[in-house]
Amino acid sequence: MQILLDVAYDGTAYCGWQWQKNGVSVQETLEEGIKRALGLEVLRVAGASRTDAGVHALGQRASFFAQGIKIPLDKLPLVISSYLPKDICVFKAQEVPDDFSPRFNAKEKTYLYRYLVGSYPNPLLRHMTVFCPHELDVGKMGEAARLLEGEHDFAAFCAAGSSAKTTVRTVYECSVSESEGIVSIKVRGNGFLYNMVRIIAGTLWQVGLGKNPPESAAIALESRKREQAGKTAPAKGLCLVDIKY
Amino acid sequence: MQILLDVAYDGTAYCGWQWQKNGVSVQETLEEGIKRALGLEVLRVAGASRTDAGVHALGQRASFFAQGIKIPLDKLPLVISSYLPKDICVFKAQEVPDDFSPRFNAKEKTYLYRYLVGSYPNPLLRHMTVFCPHELDVGKMGEAARLLEGEHDFAAFCAAGSSAKTTVRTVYECSVSESEGIVSIKVRGNGFLYNMVRIIAGTLWQVGLGKNPPESAAIALESRKREQAGKTAPAKGLCLVDIKY
Repeated sequence: MQILLDVAYDGTAYCGWQWQKNGVSVQETLEEGIKRALGLEVLRVAGASRTDAGVHALGQRASFFAQGIKIPLDKLPLVISSYLPKDICVFKAQEVPDDFSPRFNAKEKTYLYRYLVGSYPNPLLRHMTVFCPHELDVGKMGEAARLLEGEHDFAAFCAAGSSAKTTVRTVYECSVSESEGIVSIKVRGNGFLYNMVRIIAGTLWQVGLGKNPPESAAIALESRKREQAGKTAPAKGLCLVDIKY
Repeated sequence: MQILLDVAYDGTAYCGWQWQKNGVSVQETLEEGIKRALGLEVLRVAGASRTDAGVHALGQRASFFAQGIKIPLDKLPLVISSYLPKDICVFKAQEVPDDFSPRFNAKEKTYLYRYLVGSYPNPLLRHMTVFCPHELDVGKMGEAARLLEGEHDFAAFCAAGSSAKTTVRTVYECSVSESEGIVSIKVRGNGFLYNMVRIIAGTLWQVGLGKNPPESAAIALESRKREQAGKTAPAKGLCLVDIKY
C-alpha cells in the first residue's frame, strides 16, 4: 500500500527537501524516522515539492510504499513524529492508490513569502522572514501581483537550469497583505517553475521599494527574459503552505 | 556617561540573561559584542530583567558606562548588532543619567505568553510557543485573568527561592486573546516576582482546559500558597515585550 503523509518543517537546518551528498536533507531525515518507526530496513519517500535549502513547509506531502503496517493510520503521524527531530512534524497520514504520485497528481500549490518590515530585525522571526529596513508600498505590490494572475508564460520567472518542458503556468491568486509589520505575498497556482515564487517575491519587493512601477511585472512576463524580472528573493522567506490534489 | 540599550533576543540558545559559569548567557554575549564594537577591554552591562533560560525578549533594557564613545548614538545599535550573533539585536541607544538603574527605575513591564493550540505542533513556532493539543476556553481564561488585575499579594504566584522583600505587586492588565491558533496571555504590571508570569500562564492554562473554574485564580491569590496556583508554564512560551520608565 502507498501512504501519503502531510509534513511540516523548519527548513533552516537542511540542505533542502531532496537527498544530497553534502548535507542533511528533509527527505533523508524523514526516511530515517519512518524506518525507525515502522522497523523497515529500506525506504524511499517521494515528495510533492523539492523545496530548496532554507525553505520551509507547513503543507509538504510525501508518500512511501510499505506492507503490513500495524499502526493505525490515525496514530501514524504521532508515532513517526516521535522519531523525528523537532523541526520536522508529520501531521496526517492517508492511504492512496498505488499509481498516485504526490508530485504529478498535484493540482494546486500555495506558497507564502514573508518580508519583515521595520527599523530592526526581530530575532524570533529571523529564520522565516526576510528583513527589509525600508517601507514597502503594499498597495503597489498588490497591483503588480494581480498582473501575474492567470495563465502566462512565466519564462522570465524561472531560474536557469530548469528542466521544465513548458514555462506556461496558471497562477490562480497572487496577493499581498500586511499584518504586524509582516508583508506577506501569497501565490497559489497549478504548478511552479524553479525559483518562480522567489523571483515573484523579488520582483514585487522592487515594486514595493518604488524602484520599479507595478507594470514592471507585466513587462517582465511579456519579455520572457529572466533579467527583466527581479532578483531571486532569499530562501528563508518562503514557505510551502498547501497542496491540493 | 551611561548608555541604555533596547535589546531583543531569541533566548533558545542561552542559559538566560544573567552570567553563569555553566552556559552562555545573553548578558555575556552582549558584553562581548559591545566590547568589540567600542574597543573596550572591560565592560559590565546591567539588565532590567533577569530572564530565565529559553525566555525571549523584544524589549529588554541594558545599560553600561563608557567614556569617549565616538560612534553617534543613533548609529550605535547597528554597530553593536553587527558584532552580535543573529539571535540578539540591539535596536535603540540613549544616554541616561549616571544614577539611572534599568532594573530599579522600571515602572512597568509587559510580558506575553503564547500557547499554540492545534492538533500538531508547528515546527516554525516551536521555540516561541508552547504546544497545546487540547482546545483552550479563551473566554474562561480571560475571566480568570481579570481576577488577577489590580494590587494583590502574589505570594501564590512566586517560585521558591525568591529574595523579594514583599510579594505585593500591581498588575495593570492581564488579558487573553486568540489569533491564528495562538492563545496569547498579556500581563502588564509594576513588577513581577520570580516565575510570576509563567505561574499565571500555567494557572490560566488549567482554567482553559476546564480543569479548574475561573475563580480558581482568585482562590489561589487569597490563599497566598504556591500549591494553590497552577504549574509553572515552560520558559519558551514567555517573551518580555516592553519596559516603561
